[in-house]
Amino acid sequence: MYLPSWLSQLYRGLSRPIRRTTQPIWGSLSRSLVLSSQRRNPEFSSFVVRTNTCGELRSSHLGQEVTLCGWIQYRRQNTFLVLRDFHGLVQVIIPQDESAASVRKILCEAPMESVVQVSGTVISRPAGQENPKMPTGEIEIKVKTAELLNACKKLPFEIKDFMKKTEALRLQYRYLDLRSFQMQYNLRLRSQMVMKMRDYLCNLHGFVDIETPTLFKRTPGGAKEFLVPSREPGKFYSLPQSPQQFKQLLMVGGLDRYFQVARCYRDEGSRPDRQPEFTQIIDISDVFRNTEIGFLQDALSKPHGTVKAICIPEGAKYLKRKDIESIRKFSADHFDQEILPVFLNTNRNWNSPVANFIRESKRPELIRLMETQEEDVVLLMAGEHNKACSLLGKLRLECADLLETRGVVLRDPTLFSFLWVVDFPLFLPKEENPRELESAHHPFTAPHPSDIHLLYTEPEKVRSQHYDLVLNGNEIGGGSIRIHNAELQRYILATLLKEDVKLLSHILQALDYGAPPHGGIALGLDRLICLVTGSPSIRDVIAFPKSFRGHDLMSNTPDSIPPEELKPYHIQVSWPTDSKAAKAH
Amino acid sequence: MYLPSWLSQLYRGLSRPIRRTTQPIWGSLSRSLVLSSQRRNPEFSSFVVRTNTCGELRSSHLGQEVTLCGWIQYRRQNTFLVLRDFHGLVQVIIPQDESAASVRKILCEAPMESVVQVSGTVISRPAGQENPKMPTGEIEIKVKTAELLNACKKLPFEIKDFMKKTEALRLQYRYLDLRSFQMQYNLRLRSQMVMKMRDYLCNLHGFVDIETPTLFKRTPGGAKEFLVPSREPGKFYSLPQSPQQFKQLLMVGGLDRYFQVARCYRDEGSRPDRQPEFTQIIDISDVFRNTEIGFLQDALSKPHGTVKAICIPEGAKYLKRKDIESIRKFSADHFDQEILPVFLNTNRNWNSPVANFIRESKRPELIRLMETQEEDVVLLMAGEHNKACSLLGKLRLECADLLETRGVVLRDPTLFSFLWVVDFPLFLPKEENPRELESAHHPFTAPHPSDIHLLYTEPEKVRSQHYDLVLNGNEIGGGSIRIHNAELQRYILATLLKEDVKLLSHILQALDYGAPPHGGIALGLDRLICLVTGSPSIRDVIAFPKSFRGHDLMSNTPDSIPPEELKPYHIQVSWPTDSKAAKAH
Repeated sequence: MYLPSWLSQLYRGLSRPIRRTTQPIWGSLSRSLVLSSQRRNPEFSSFVVRTNTCGELRSSHLGQEVTLCGWIQYRRQNTFLVLRDFHGLVQVIIPQDESAASVRKILCEAPMESVVQVSGTVISRPAGQENPKMPTGEIEIKVKTAELLNACKKLPFEIKDFMKKTEALRLQYRYLDLRSFQMQYNLRLRSQMVMKMRDYLCNLHGFVDIETPTLFKRTPGGAKEFLVPSREPGKFYSLPQSPQQFKQLLMVGGLDRYFQVARCYRDEGSRPDRQPEFTQIIDISDVFRNTEIGFLQDALSKPHGTVKAICIPEGAKYLKRKDIESIRKFSADHFDQEILPVFLNTNRNWNSPVANFIRESKRPELIRLMETQEEDVVLLMAGEHNKACSLLGKLRLECADLLETRGVVLRDPTLFSFLWVVDFPLFLPKEENPRELESAHHPFTAPHPSDIHLLYTEPEKVRSQHYDLVLNGNEIGGGSIRIHNAELQRYILATLLKEDVKLLSHILQALDYGAPPHGGIALGLDRLICLVTGSPSIRDVIAFPKSFRGHDLMSNTPDSIPPEELKPYHIQVSWPTDSKAAKAH
Repeated sequence: MYLPSWLSQLYRGLSRPIRRTTQPIWGSLSRSLVLSSQRRNPEFSSFVVRTNTCGELRSSHLGQEVTLCGWIQYRRQNTFLVLRDFHGLVQVIIPQDESAASVRKILCEAPMESVVQVSGTVISRPAGQENPKMPTGEIEIKVKTAELLNACKKLPFEIKDFMKKTEALRLQYRYLDLRSFQMQYNLRLRSQMVMKMRDYLCNLHGFVDIETPTLFKRTPGGAKEFLVPSREPGKFYSLPQSPQQFKQLLMVGGLDRYFQVARCYRDEGSRPDRQPEFTQIIDISDVFRNTEIGFLQDALSKPHGTVKAICIPEGAKYLKRKDIESIRKFSADHFDQEILPVFLNTNRNWNSPVANFIRESKRPELIRLMETQEEDVVLLMAGEHNKACSLLGKLRLECADLLETRGVVLRDPTLFSFLWVVDFPLFLPKEENPRELESAHHPFTAPHPSDIHLLYTEPEKVRSQHYDLVLNGNEIGGGSIRIHNAELQRYILATLLKEDVKLLSHILQALDYGAPPHGGIALGLDRLICLVTGSPSIRDVIAFPKSFRGHDLMSNTPDSIPPEELKPYHIQVSWPTDSKAAKAH
């Protein structure tokens, strides 16, 4: 599994992104982005009037006659203006002599962000007026002719201030927002990263890029899938959440190394965003099996009860009493849970209200299990397994935040730390009926080879061959080895999960015809690019994102459709009887 | 416009595809496809058991212990079998000694197309038994251990015979069809071609690859767009036919060189497939303005009447009387049109029933206009302009077919001939009401600069800046320079086309904020790959195509949805009152 090392390599090849620039640094654009014009001259055909891009002119171009096109970024005292395209900025001198009155009029009267074309000569800036922060800072353009290609109306906001505006305004005027440095940077970096991925998979490793359909059959339990009515009465397509069935069918079809940058549809209008979550913990229940501490005993006597702990290395050195208090308060407020801190001081004495209750004989075992060292702090907690895990995961991040405010460098934001999460359970008890099982991921995931016998006796104990990839604490991908045996797949679907096998008969049939053992992984591209660019939201790495309610604020989508246009699809709207809802539409 | 030359170049870099192989040549697969294993060793991680692919073993591997995985392609007299993966074929010797009884049992009993894993030694084939047609034909594998990874049920058809089967059967068992040589070839070539395109655009010319949404707003007149109900009562998304609005918005947003391999949705259930069509003709009406030939005179006296001709070079030499008769019959049967053939013999005498009616004085003019030479045949026809053009286009192809059966090499199938079609009209009269205009392509296409003044006086005469790209007679792409001026766009939409401007207010607004002049082109990838691979149908270059009625025959899609699953989308099915239709579903 070479992805993490590859990604780090890729990343070193790209320039370091700037984290959250509220003051966009236009000048740095052409330095920080690897654009074609810096690497070689773009081909200009006879249909293109510009001879150069705004960002590429240097002292070596002195004396050349050039034609440039761009947006007016800035104008000062009707003497010069700064022209911008997305290769950079260039300074243009507005002619002051009478004979150039018409050129002056165009350049002085065009509103900011208008598109103009200028022709002129590349000249040196006067001594002392060079701008070393600007790649084109040694030269300027002495204009001879100018043309206004398109005038710009008064803008709803200034391009450079876009980050200060509300997100709703940015989404409504997305085409202006896209002109900002940060959006240009994000989208261009995304394009380059995806290209590197393709290059790696396709050119270096013989993967085959295959497009799979997005109009497909509903998957069982696919309540989050968009429906698409067809022209046959009562018949619908579905927009699949992922090409998961097609991936497997391609394997059966012998396309042995397949990849796709796939569009996934998930109608999550009714669901909160799933938060990726994982925890590293250590189970110390056995140490406390015969404890005298009330709340630990309570917890252990219950089903799924456990005692867990995390160790904060050198916590005793950096964390103050009030920090520990805030941690206890945090867990009490958020999880209604008690936390027991244990301080290990230099002479290994235990400094904790709980210390007296932990028998001397148990202490070495605890120290061994926790791998604690001097000056560490141990946080003990007890409770129902899942809740305890979830809380300790949060406490761990909370403690890291605290330690970092005390000057301890724990997480280097320039590092990319990858982690595989494995050994997930194959099934989970259904929330609404814990006696029935549901797939922890999806019903096609293969069981762990050593656990297959448990499928017929204790299926809830079977581990899966699912794996998740985590980058700096964020889940960025996941995948699994799939079931390639039709009988096993039928048993899991029909007997264990009680699914309607008819909906999946094509998959079961395909497995019967010589399906090879296979597996794969999918990366969440939006989230990955988000982490790499340091963007606060995935909407900042997507050209035209929907709002969190699934709306396109620019075009006002979704929108009403006249009833006669629904007729070919044999559907009609069921208006809610609640008059409020009807009015609201 | 460098596309055609680039494509030819790309094409030379790829191997020559095989046209319509009914007998797939398995051995040639590894020769004709440029796969990673031939170029470099694929990385095998510790999770992969095979040490080599089936296609890569040569004499240089003699003596090596290898582990291979593949499908059983062929077995002979329980002595050897041929193992296949999609890098090639390899011969495996089934051990005959008693001690290997279990291995023999596995390899002799596994049904064809089962997946097996074998380990053994690479040995030389006995002298005289080498197979020079097979890249691995000098060696074979002496097997020591074998494992049946997945058994295959009896197949509905043999993989190598897939082309002989009905297309419905092929689509139903698409995952088996995909194992055929031709489908593997088509999909792998497609992947490589798209990769070359991306490489060219992205890496060489700084284009930015941007994904645009597929859930968007209905476009005016978008009767062919699929609808997607949202969870808001009566509100719908639409699946756009193309990212046409987004492309323009990206230009306004300053993403100056954008491309995308985009998914386009067109609900053509109710429309026949549009056939690309173009014709080259020569208008010779003026020559016959005062003709005495009845049907020509008739035609010219009507509005849009015209006399047109095509010249068949050296037709007199190759075409027989009966060929000309079949051409006359073709035009009479298909178009209810008369055709007048004119033979030009060596002494430039005119040999035609019409010859006497063409005045001697007109003949040189005709010869000049038609650029005819000795032994050419001229086909004359008259009629309504559009009909005449359409017929002559078809006659031209018909004549080419005839000449080719006579041994004349007209169309070299190994050549790629590109052609730009330009100067389309911007508007066409509406079929249902010829006094109103509709866009010949779409309302965003810019008028030809020299015709802009006609927009306000004779809009039907305005030429557009639309261009189509034709490859070997097939339209493979088209594009246009777009309108960047909001006023002009508003005038065309509201005044000339009488469209509801509200649906496009976001585009009009975007043009107001400094939209640069812009244009683009879109290639039809399916059709292009179809031409390059010589496939009879675009369904042969798509992994999971729909049938011509829009069905997925493998999974039976579209399918019924229980009414309760329609509730969240506030729609219900309007069942047709016609009981037949209701039963049919």
